[in-house]
Amino acid sequence: MAVLLLPIPGLPRVRPGDDLGALLASAIAEARVGVKDDDVLVVCQKVVSKAEGRVVALSSIEPSELARAWAATYDKDARLIELVLRESARIVRMDGGNLIVETRSGWVCANAGIDQSNALDDDHVTLLPVDADASAARLRAHLAERLGADLAVIVTDTFGRPWRHGQIEFAIGVAGIDPLLDLRGTADMNGRELGITILAAADAIAAAAGLVMGKADGIGAVLVRGASVVRVAGDGPGARSLVRPRETDLFR
Amino acid sequence: MAVLLLPIPGLPRVRPGDDLGALLASAIAEARVGVKDDDVLVVCQKVVSKAEGRVVALSSIEPSELARAWAATYDKDARLIELVLRESARIVRMDGGNLIVETRSGWVCANAGIDQSNALDDDHVTLLPVDADASAARLRAHLAERLGADLAVIVTDTFGRPWRHGQIEFAIGVAGIDPLLDLRGTADMNGRELGITILAAADAIAAAAGLVMGKADGIGAVLVRGASVVRVAGDGPGARSLVRPRETDLFR
Repeated sequence: MAVLLLPIPGLPRVRPGDDLGALLASAIAEARVGVKDDDVLVVCQKVVSKAEGRVVALSSIEPSELARAWAATYDKDARLIELVLRESARIVRMDGGNLIVETRSGWVCANAGIDQSNALDDDHVTLLPVDADASAARLRAHLAERLGADLAVIVTDTFGRPWRHGQIEFAIGVAGIDPLLDLRGTADMNGRELGITILAAADAIAAAAGLVMGKADGIGAVLVRGASVVRVAGDGPGARSLVRPRETDLFR
Repeated sequence: MAVLLLPIPGLPRVRPGDDLGALLASAIAEARVGVKDDDVLVVCQKVVSKAEGRVVALSSIEPSELARAWAATYDKDARLIELVLRESARIVRMDGGNLIVETRSGWVCANAGIDQSNALDDDHVTLLPVDADASAARLRAHLAERLGADLAVIVTDTFGRPWRHGQIEFAIGVAGIDPLLDLRGTADMNGRELGITILAAADAIAAAAGLVMGKADGIGAVLVRGASVVRVAGDGPGARSLVRPRETDLFR
């Protein structure tokens, strides 16, 4: 069966306090995609963060001595470094002013996912949602109520990768599917062309949606239809199940 | 515009020396997908490797002293470790018998991409293509001739990732598109919901195709239609442009 990636245009510029579930429900209805129970709605982090008020004015930040010292050394904005440190559980790498950190949710990424582009104005930056799994679960409940369909929801963010140029979308919040699809038991491995044993299905869906989001301005949501996913009762284990434990991670 | 991921079933079990271009052309014709010039054909590494004869019998391998010592320490197959070392330009991490290496093509992955599943029998393993960009270019030329359409071709392999559970597909060979899509100049960043600046388009397409490959046995090829890609004259820079130079890589 084919997989379809359907752009959901028509989402207005989201502002803190907006009812994102309602905005998404309207945009999906306008898109006339005939929403189905097994569809997965992919929403980019920035609209979620903005709706949840995870927007900070740099001018409101008083940098610590440490942040000032690093900023002076690397010619960076001390207020931004201060915010990155506040959002981080641990610094994984620091080199030439580039901070690769582990966020409080366990994501390893540059600058704790703080984004200077497309916030409200030049002074404002967006932070990652406090708990993107909870964000996805809330949106899923809203959409079930408003659309009458049991969608799954994935919240994505844009990360760079070690070893490879360029960025792709990754899942940071998941509700309604298992983010991992275990293929080990499903087929005789001698009959399978794919080397995958455990597919990071939510990440693959996120990356796929990024193809549509990248195509045009303002596409903050994509409906994915027909992907191989494991539906779960309720919201499921969430994107946190994608976090590799430190003990099995050779690169933390 | 929607993006479509179309499975291409009907590819037979590929064996060394098979004309993969002809097999793919037949399978695409049988799939009745109405192939178009801007479609991207995604082919998994294993069928490419098998057609190119990149299959080795473990029983033919004489392990070195080093491979024997490591294998004894970690309870692994010395012949497999010997093959991994032969295929590697550098060892990036070694821990508990897990070898993360840089292949001669520049890919950082476990066991140099050597795959024990689904080769010809239990004794045989598949190696990565010697030059997967050249593999993609050859397939592209074959398909243009046989189908009369100027497809792009991406060869993918399944890699794990640092920091995250599960595997997804990555591009290791690309012909006909630029693997990177630079979005920096295309829009006012204040009008863009996506934080991406340079999209690793070939990797995103690979990951998307993995959603279809993961669904059923034997889906070794997927046609991707409508993705945002930059077509290039000729084969283009190839997947090697996705290799991050060591100087800018904090994790090599």
